[in-house]
Amino acid sequence: MKPLSQCRIAIVGLGLMGGSLAGALRAHCRDVTGVARRPETVEDALRFGLIDHGTTNPEDALPHADVVILATPVRTIIRQIREFAPMLGEGCLLMDLGSTKQEIIAAMEELPRRIQPLGGHPMCGKEVAGIAEADPVLYRGCTFILVPLERTSAAALALGQTLVEAVGSSPLVLDGERQDRLVATLSHLPYLLACSLVQTADASTSNDPAAWEIVAGGYRDTSRVAGSDVTMMMDILITNRRAVLDATETFQRKLAALVDLLEAEDEAGLKAALAAGRAERRRMFP
Amino acid sequence: MKPLSQCRIAIVGLGLMGGSLAGALRAHCRDVTGVARRPETVEDALRFGLIDHGTTNPEDALPHADVVILATPVRTIIRQIREFAPMLGEGCLLMDLGSTKQEIIAAMEELPRRIQPLGGHPMCGKEVAGIAEADPVLYRGCTFILVPLERTSAAALALGQTLVEAVGSSPLVLDGERQDRLVATLSHLPYLLACSLVQTADASTSNDPAAWEIVAGGYRDTSRVAGSDVTMMMDILITNRRAVLDATETFQRKLAALVDLLEAEDEAGLKAALAAGRAERRRMFP
Repeated sequence: MKPLSQCRIAIVGLGLMGGSLAGALRAHCRDVTGVARRPETVEDALRFGLIDHGTTNPEDALPHADVVILATPVRTIIRQIREFAPMLGEGCLLMDLGSTKQEIIAAMEELPRRIQPLGGHPMCGKEVAGIAEADPVLYRGCTFILVPLERTSAAALALGQTLVEAVGSSPLVLDGERQDRLVATLSHLPYLLACSLVQTADASTSNDPAAWEIVAGGYRDTSRVAGSDVTMMMDILITNRRAVLDATETFQRKLAALVDLLEAEDEAGLKAALAAGRAERRRMFP
Repeated sequence: MKPLSQCRIAIVGLGLMGGSLAGALRAHCRDVTGVARRPETVEDALRFGLIDHGTTNPEDALPHADVVILATPVRTIIRQIREFAPMLGEGCLLMDLGSTKQEIIAAMEELPRRIQPLGGHPMCGKEVAGIAEADPVLYRGCTFILVPLERTSAAALALGQTLVEAVGSSPLVLDGERQDRLVATLSHLPYLLACSLVQTADASTSNDPAAWEIVAGGYRDTSRVAGSDVTMMMDILITNRRAVLDATETFQRKLAALVDLLEAEDEAGLKAALAAGRAERRRMFP
């Protein structure tokens, strides 16, 4: 594997995540080529200084790349792994930024042996989408999960870790099943809660004009991720369905228990439950 | 009623909310006296420059006050309304900062006629408590709900509005039933969701050390209010029980509908529901 500074990197998908990563990587590699479906997106990425070269045709970019990063929705990544495999050169490191990993890893297993696959999932983002929102500092200070396959070489994993550190993230190596289970609770469940909360407000209070003036910080924070890109979230929920349903079922039991305590006016029980939650929150975010 | 600049103001309860309000009001009135149960709290408030005078004895402060503001948990406010009534002078404006209003208003109805009562609920706060966290800018830019009673004079309401504007908040006049129903959905329900989410993580992922490294922004935001002061939240939930249970029931139905769509892999239905939630979130926070 070449050192990162000599690598030619191709990033497929120039949305918020791909565009931001491109901008962050430019200073650390030989060059970054952006691949997008729409010519306007390529033009924007060039104009914003996020890429060195850009194209709408993967065949122009992928054969020369030392590192290819797929920054599209999860099910598009799975399709592109198969579609792009014939275009990738000997020893090419193929990474992705998908939020669920088991189905992507399964697709990567089928790649020709000359390709080095490495699953990736940066734990950052914003509830906005598109190249216009891209920001090279987005990856600074976040955890970036890496999921190597059995077949991934130590050198390929090391290059992936160097790349992650170059953009300011901290690499965390996990297996696919464990990562999918963790993010089901810590990321995908909060999304479903935010959506349900927004729908609750829509059904009950949002026909009252005063609601708009008093939307409290609690509501704003708890509903924030409901603004996430729907196509991206659909792929995440569908490809992590079982783990998301399990986490949601646990949540529903916990909420129902609080409701029972409040319904019964069991003050001692309710207070103990809320205090335990508060202590746990403080343990997580001291 | 005297103009605000000539008023002597007493604030009972020098926690985050009372201490911050005291600090914000000092520049706009004759003087601010803080009343707290513990002498250390009074000393801290004096040392931080949040009050002009301080005492642990309400009888030292309340008889001279033109405005008295109760900044304690809701059920303490209800008790103090009855306990302090004999100490309040002719024409005294009695306000509170409690998050639920119907039970407080009912207690205010019983006050002697010489007292002018006005319910208040500032839509600001932090998930920390205590005088050490007090900050005079806390009230800037927030909506401050005011709930006048039938018996409240126009002059008393006007003084309350002037006071609210002086600390940088925007007054919003509502009746108690409507305010309690709105905040049940927009503030108290998000709190129950945050607590349940933290308990879900505690039950499933938080025994995995990797969970701490990947707690995503979605989880951090959605769980934030779980760190709120438990005594304060207990009083809120108990005194707004029916409205909170109604809002929670609506939420449970909305979440169950999303679960059903995901369980059935009904992609068109799930996507439509998520897109509607996203549009509503964006309508609320453009």
